[in-house]
Amino acid sequence: MEYERKVCLQRESVMLDSYSGISKKVGMPPGSLIHVGDFDEDDTRISVVDYCHGDLEEPVVETVEDLLKFREKDSITWVCLEGLKNVEITEQIGKLFDIHPLVLEDILNTHQRPKFEEYDDYLYIVLKGLTVADESVDPEDFEVHYEQISILVLNDFVFTFKERKDELFLPLIQRIRNSSGRIRTLGTDYLTYGILDTIVDQNFVLLDTMDERVDAIEEELLDDPDSGTLATIQRLKRELIDIRRATSPQRELVAAILRSDHQLFSEKVDIYFRDVYDHVLRINESVDSYRDMLAGLLDIYVSSISNKMNEVMKILTVFASIFIPLTFIAGIYGMNFEYMPELKWKWAYPTLWLAFVTIPAVLLIYFKKKKWL
Amino acid sequence: MEYERKVCLQRESVMLDSYSGISKKVGMPPGSLIHVGDFDEDDTRISVVDYCHGDLEEPVVETVEDLLKFREKDSITWVCLEGLKNVEITEQIGKLFDIHPLVLEDILNTHQRPKFEEYDDYLYIVLKGLTVADESVDPEDFEVHYEQISILVLNDFVFTFKERKDELFLPLIQRIRNSSGRIRTLGTDYLTYGILDTIVDQNFVLLDTMDERVDAIEEELLDDPDSGTLATIQRLKRELIDIRRATSPQRELVAAILRSDHQLFSEKVDIYFRDVYDHVLRINESVDSYRDMLAGLLDIYVSSISNKMNEVMKILTVFASIFIPLTFIAGIYGMNFEYMPELKWKWAYPTLWLAFVTIPAVLLIYFKKKKWL
Amino acid sequence: MEYERKVCLQRESVMLDSYSGISKKVGMPPGSLIHVGDFDEDDTRISVVDYCHGDLEEPVVETVEDLLKFREKDSITWVCLEGLKNVEITEQIGKLFDIHPLVLEDILNTHQRPKFEEYDDYLYIVLKGLTVADESVDPEDFEVHYEQISILVLNDFVFTFKERKDELFLPLIQRIRNSSGRIRTLGTDYLTYGILDTIVDQNFVLLDTMDERVDAIEEELLDDPDSGTLATIQRLKRELIDIRRATSPQRELVAAILRSDHQLFSEKVDIYFRDVYDHVLRINESVDSYRDMLAGLLDIYVSSISNKMNEVMKILTVFASIFIPLTFIAGIYGMNFEYMPELKWKWAYPTLWLAFVTIPAVLLIYFKKKKWL
Amino acid sequence: MEYERKVCLQRESVMLDSYSGISKKVGMPPGSLIHVGDFDEDDTRISVVDYCHGDLEEPVVETVEDLLKFREKDSITWVCLEGLKNVEITEQIGKLFDIHPLVLEDILNTHQRPKFEEYDDYLYIVLKGLTVADESVDPEDFEVHYEQISILVLNDFVFTFKERKDELFLPLIQRIRNSSGRIRTLGTDYLTYGILDTIVDQNFVLLDTMDERVDAIEEELLDDPDSGTLATIQRLKRELIDIRRATSPQRELVAAILRSDHQLFSEKVDIYFRDVYDHVLRINESVDSYRDMLAGLLDIYVSSISNKMNEVMKILTVFASIFIPLTFIAGIYGMNFEYMPELKWKWAYPTLWLAFVTIPAVLLIYFKKKKWL
Amino acid sequence: MEYERKVCLQRESVMLDSYSGISKKVGMPPGSLIHVGDFDEDDTRISVVDYCHGDLEEPVVETVEDLLKFREKDSITWVCLEGLKNVEITEQIGKLFDIHPLVLEDILNTHQRPKFEEYDDYLYIVLKGLTVADESVDPEDFEVHYEQISILVLNDFVFTFKERKDELFLPLIQRIRNSSGRIRTLGTDYLTYGILDTIVDQNFVLLDTMDERVDAIEEELLDDPDSGTLATIQRLKRELIDIRRATSPQRELVAAILRSDHQLFSEKVDIYFRDVYDHVLRINESVDSYRDMLAGLLDIYVSSISNKMNEVMKILTVFASIFIPLTFIAGIYGMNFEYMPELKWKWAYPTLWLAFVTIPAVLLIYFKKKKWL
Repeated sequence: MEYERKVCLQRESVMLDSYSGISKKVGMPPGSLIHVGDFDEDDTRISVVDYCHGDLEEPVVETVEDLLKFREKDSITWVCLEGLKNVEITEQIGKLFDIHPLVLEDILNTHQRPKFEEYDDYLYIVLKGLTVADESVDPEDFEVHYEQISILVLNDFVFTFKERKDELFLPLIQRIRNSSGRIRTLGTDYLTYGILDTIVDQNFVLLDTMDERVDAIEEELLDDPDSGTLATIQRLKRELIDIRRATSPQRELVAAILRSDHQLFSEKVDIYFRDVYDHVLRINESVDSYRDMLAGLLDIYVSSISNKMNEVMKILTVFASIFIPLTFIAGIYGMNFEYMPELKWKWAYPTLWLAFVTIPAVLLIYFKKKKWL
Repeated sequence: MEYERKVCLQRESVMLDSYSGISKKVGMPPGSLIHVGDFDEDDTRISVVDYCHGDLEEPVVETVEDLLKFREKDSITWVCLEGLKNVEITEQIGKLFDIHPLVLEDILNTHQRPKFEEYDDYLYIVLKGLTVADESVDPEDFEVHYEQISILVLNDFVFTFKERKDELFLPLIQRIRNSSGRIRTLGTDYLTYGILDTIVDQNFVLLDTMDERVDAIEEELLDDPDSGTLATIQRLKRELIDIRRATSPQRELVAAILRSDHQLFSEKVDIYFRDVYDHVLRINESVDSYRDMLAGLLDIYVSSISNKMNEVMKILTVFASIFIPLTFIAGIYGMNFEYMPELKWKWAYPTLWLAFVTIPAVLLIYFKKKKWL
Repeated sequence: MEYERKVCLQRESVMLDSYSGISKKVGMPPGSLIHVGDFDEDDTRISVVDYCHGDLEEPVVETVEDLLKFREKDSITWVCLEGLKNVEITEQIGKLFDIHPLVLEDILNTHQRPKFEEYDDYLYIVLKGLTVADESVDPEDFEVHYEQISILVLNDFVFTFKERKDELFLPLIQRIRNSSGRIRTLGTDYLTYGILDTIVDQNFVLLDTMDERVDAIEEELLDDPDSGTLATIQRLKRELIDIRRATSPQRELVAAILRSDHQLFSEKVDIYFRDVYDHVLRINESVDSYRDMLAGLLDIYVSSISNKMNEVMKILTVFASIFIPLTFIAGIYGMNFEYMPELKWKWAYPTLWLAFVTIPAVLLIYFKKKKWL
Repeated sequence: MEYERKVCLQRESVMLDSYSGISKKVGMPPGSLIHVGDFDEDDTRISVVDYCHGDLEEPVVETVEDLLKFREKDSITWVCLEGLKNVEITEQIGKLFDIHPLVLEDILNTHQRPKFEEYDDYLYIVLKGLTVADESVDPEDFEVHYEQISILVLNDFVFTFKERKDELFLPLIQRIRNSSGRIRTLGTDYLTYGILDTIVDQNFVLLDTMDERVDAIEEELLDDPDSGTLATIQRLKRELIDIRRATSPQRELVAAILRSDHQLFSEKVDIYFRDVYDHVLRINESVDSYRDMLAGLLDIYVSSISNKMNEVMKILTVFASIFIPLTFIAGIYGMNFEYMPELKWKWAYPTLWLAFVTIPAVLLIYFKKKKWL
Repeated sequence: MEYERKVCLQRESVMLDSYSGISKKVGMPPGSLIHVGDFDEDDTRISVVDYCHGDLEEPVVETVEDLLKFREKDSITWVCLEGLKNVEITEQIGKLFDIHPLVLEDILNTHQRPKFEEYDDYLYIVLKGLTVADESVDPEDFEVHYEQISILVLNDFVFTFKERKDELFLPLIQRIRNSSGRIRTLGTDYLTYGILDTIVDQNFVLLDTMDERVDAIEEELLDDPDSGTLATIQRLKRELIDIRRATSPQRELVAAILRSDHQLFSEKVDIYFRDVYDHVLRINESVDSYRDMLAGLLDIYVSSISNKMNEVMKILTVFASIFIPLTFIAGIYGMNFEYMPELKWKWAYPTLWLAFVTIPAVLLIYFKKKKWL
């Protein structure tokens, strides 16, 4: 029992955070830049990749002003911020690149619904990055990190704002370094595709883990279900509700990108976003399937419990039905009446033993025919 | 049991009011100004905030006619009425500002569906303000006040009609006073946004409380469910049905505002309403998630009860299956037949004791193998 | 049990009527004027109200031809027919006012889906009027009358065809008499609004009663559920299915009126129909809510039954588990073996009594710890 | 149990036919004319009705060529084929009247989804005719025949292809004979309406029977549910799934006819098809209602079973709880200890009888208070 | 139990593959040609059919370059590749026929959602081919192979890429050989129809098998349900979820083809694709029906278990209720009190026997009336 309790408390804290964060902000004027989020990284890591077809630079950037010099260059600059607690950095970027205050607020308040917004000079994409917590090597445990990732697409700048410091974008950076694929020859729109694709495909890893978990539960259910199984099913169900809330708006988001005819998105890249769209559809369908499966697991759990109770009842009934009548018969001849002729018969006792053997035999055959044994 | 009864009665009165109010009005000509509502504040509080970029005035207003002088001024006047029982005030405002009688009727009859209506010279917004009752500090209790809030947007006037007197708009008034944010530089449309945003964001506080409650129930369920838990789940379910009814039409409402191209709404404010729209979407999704969770809780409750019964049955079966055969054996040798050779054997009694010990031992091992113990 | 049986039979007859009526007509040419309905009023009551801004007349009309004289007058004439068994009256009206035979057929065949149809010279509205049967003062009983009401809107005539004679329109007639509201100054479109509004608002009374019933059941459920409660829930569920079927198409109906730009509907009256539309939406949402609530009640019923069984099982288990071992011990010393040394010990009997007291005590403490008592 | 088995086997064969028929055809070139269907009428009945406003002819037709002579006549010719096994007839009609091979294939392969297709010179309508099997006078039994009916509408020809020979169209033919209604004065479009209307209205008869069945089950459920009731509910459910599959596409079909502006459909007949559309809507709503009701019935069944078990458990508990302690007391004084002072007391036995009476009395009062009796 | 375990493990491996395949690819640049799939055929089979109206050739092709010579010919060439492990073949085709790298990637990564994409010079169709595994002759077993089939439609070339080597297209090739039907006279669009139709109609065979399985379970359920039945239902449910995921996007796919006005699809072939669309609709409706049926089966399973438990409980209750009181009575007269007058009465023992017979008789009649026997 201790175990389930822990799970609950864990969840509770996550959920409380997620809303109490918001409700703390109720009543503030819009555009107030305060960081609201679950991951409080102490400092912000800024990584910059500046590249064009022939050239690649990965400068170390100390202040936001350092970014200005890449503005003049005719190259694509990808600025990746990890850790949002230092609000001033975001504020400065907002001022230097003329970003609407509400967008900055959305970047910092990490409880946004995934969405895509078009502005005259830039595009704003915000969505959830879902990663399975590494600690969850324990097959029983399954924790998902929900991190808000904001993408600002400018003419030759792309900013990504992540809540956590991790290696999510490493493979993409590697591809730019190796100049593998088309990435070095195309514009910020293709880089945006690369970033989106990386985030969306991360969900497949998640579904992988979910799949393992569902199969493990199914095996457990048919093998030996206990109340821990029930708690696990319920936890997966709640996790799936949260995953669904994070992934289902992605469909709308990518569809909006596909519909968009903003000058920053060239038509050539459309086919790549369509690919992302297919992935998003597939993820949503999988999430729905898992939901159906979990509902099915609960049904099986209930049925298994009934089955077990049924078996227990049969044993009880067989025992009781056989021995209660016999005990009664023995009770009869334990009575102390003076006039009980049977007591004096010589064959009475052996005859009774015959009854003690045949009655159970008859009952057992009867129960066998009723398919209880 | 007393507790649940009370809950029921409380609810009953609320629900009865809500419809009996309406049904009392059946058959009346449209536009009859009668106050129909749950909150009968005895008197009406009128607060006025008149502001422009450089100036702020908060005059005390006694009669509706006093408002006329602000009409000439080139400033924005926000008139906030709390308590709708005094019908004449609303009537007078209607006459002075030329409001359609049906709108006045809707303001006073507090059972409107949230909606947005455009008229030539003004806009009418009506929605529900949901606040968690302060008294509900008792963790078991969870009461929501549903208050109808009407907003009339004119060229340089905004009227808000609230049923209850509370401090809901205080933070917003504070912001106007401090001239913080953009509020003092923009028109009635931005003020309308501020008011709507305040009302909508209030729902996050509500969901916060709901979340705590759901987690508390979940813990209780896995710990020690009783029939009180069932009653609590049912109450939350009904509360959620009511919350859903109040919040789900808000989506449509804000979408209608976004679609509107009324001259009173400038394009600059659109982005702010889009923000409110995002919040409304998020609230609706959360409400749906809680619904799923509550349904899941009921499933767990039923499974837990089955589990418990199963355990009880096992104990009974083990006890009965072990002792009933033994009692039968004892009964045999309690019989009074004259010819029972065993009775005279010297080792009969100790041998029987051996049986009395081995039979239970064998059965216990069998039950252990069947995983009943 | 007698009670539920009665309920079933009642329903059966209603449902059988409703379809057997239709199926009787299968194979007839369209436009055959035969009255198909549940309410067989023997004679038809014709009430006429003829009014214009300054004048009001309520003539007694014997024959349909009498209506012709109001045709020349520049006033609005509202003809209300109650009781549809006398087919000729409807037929004559059809001929005199040039109504399409299919419309006449729809008026008489009272199993129409609510709908709105536009013809060149007139409009046809048909919907269900739902009234709670007056006899149902018995709190257990809840019967709804479903009456088809047809409205024919002409240039200065409005015909209403009701199945039953009752006082439904009395408040509206009163308003015309008193010339209260705008009714006397506006045309047939406003009168149509008044009629529709009266019929639709009647549903609020119905929902009121439904609400009382749901609350009563909920109390009963938490107090002392029995199989009667189950039957009541099922009855309400079926009633709600019927109510839903009657009210849900009203939404579409009023929406069609709102979309219509028929010359008989002036734009001025649009806002009133929008009001009716809001009411219809609200009614539909309420009906859906009650459906959810009833589903919830059934869940509670099942859980309550499980709970009760659980309690019964615990009592049985406690009794059996305590006394069965004791009986066995007593049985041992009731055996008649010659060599049973304990039988001769002096303190054996008192010692046994000690066991008879301590064993139950230990078991009771154990059960207490398992939370069974 | 025998009974349910039979039902299953019956269904099985129907379902197997329905798909194995199709799957047999997999891999064939499209337009291969092979009859695939459940009803293998040996020969084909061809009935012809040729009529115009003033004239009516019902010639006996032997070969398809005989139909050619009606082509020249300026009259409407309705050719009704019953029994599709003789593939050549359909093939010949296809050649003579220039029908697309795929249409002919659809006519013969009787597993089409209801649909409406427009071709340059003709229209093709295919839908299911549902009739309650006449044999099902046994109230327990409820069998539905699903027959595919194809309608080909040409300029002055209408062909109907039915799988079974029955009297479905007799009332319509009678109406043409009697020249009752508008049928003789209007074109093939009105005849098509008449045919469609006849087929659709047949569903009302079906729903009638369904209604009787549902009510019968409900009564049985509240009276004395057994496992047969469960099988009956399941059967109705499956039947309803099939009915739904046959009727729900009719909505789309008639809507497509209403939208069509093919020259073969004059505007005058639109109002009649709108009437059919209303009927189809009503049928679909009814089918949905019955689905809800059947789901409700299953809930009641489960609850009733729980209720019954509860009652059984109470009886057991009451018996066991009362007599087990008493038996124990009797057992005590059946022990054979030498030193049992009570055995010699004179009033011991009567006192014990007092206990034997008071203990059950006390327990019964206790159980009564717990509402178990 | 062993059996279900095996089933689970089987499934697990399939599901793990399906996602781990994808997740292995996360982070790769788009267009990387790696084969990701479940079926690892070692070598690739290339079959070519080259035909025009008068001529047919089935050349053996060794290398992709061999295909070039068919390019000049004015005939239709159908190239069918089976086995995708040899990535170079696909790559070469891509280069020679100028196919977009993303399309090639989709062909090789066999986890695509069914879709239809239009390019300037060619069309790309990808969908799932579902075949029932031949090994599943065991009535208990039901395994479905999900194979991705890609179709590339060019001006006079059609490429099909299959994962597995089987005889799926044999009947179609036969038809081309026999020149039966229209296939030899029409273009690549008609061939595409033929291929699609073959794949889609394969689903009917699948549904056939599903139908048999559902009926078998239903029979088993009403006959003698055990926990194996539950496992079977669950397996079918999961299989159906997978089938649904494979077939439901086909609707959208064929609809997109119907909407398309690409020059490669002539209008003449539209009617054939409409036919495929009808089949797809019918398959989807059937899958939904089976889902409903399986849900119904689970309900019946649970009810059957309850029923059985009920029966067991009745037997127990009858036995216990009859013999427990009798044993008590026997116990009374087994007591050893000195003053028990009945013990000396001559008729006491026979009288008691009378009681031993009448008490059970009375109880049995009582239980009979309660309908327990």
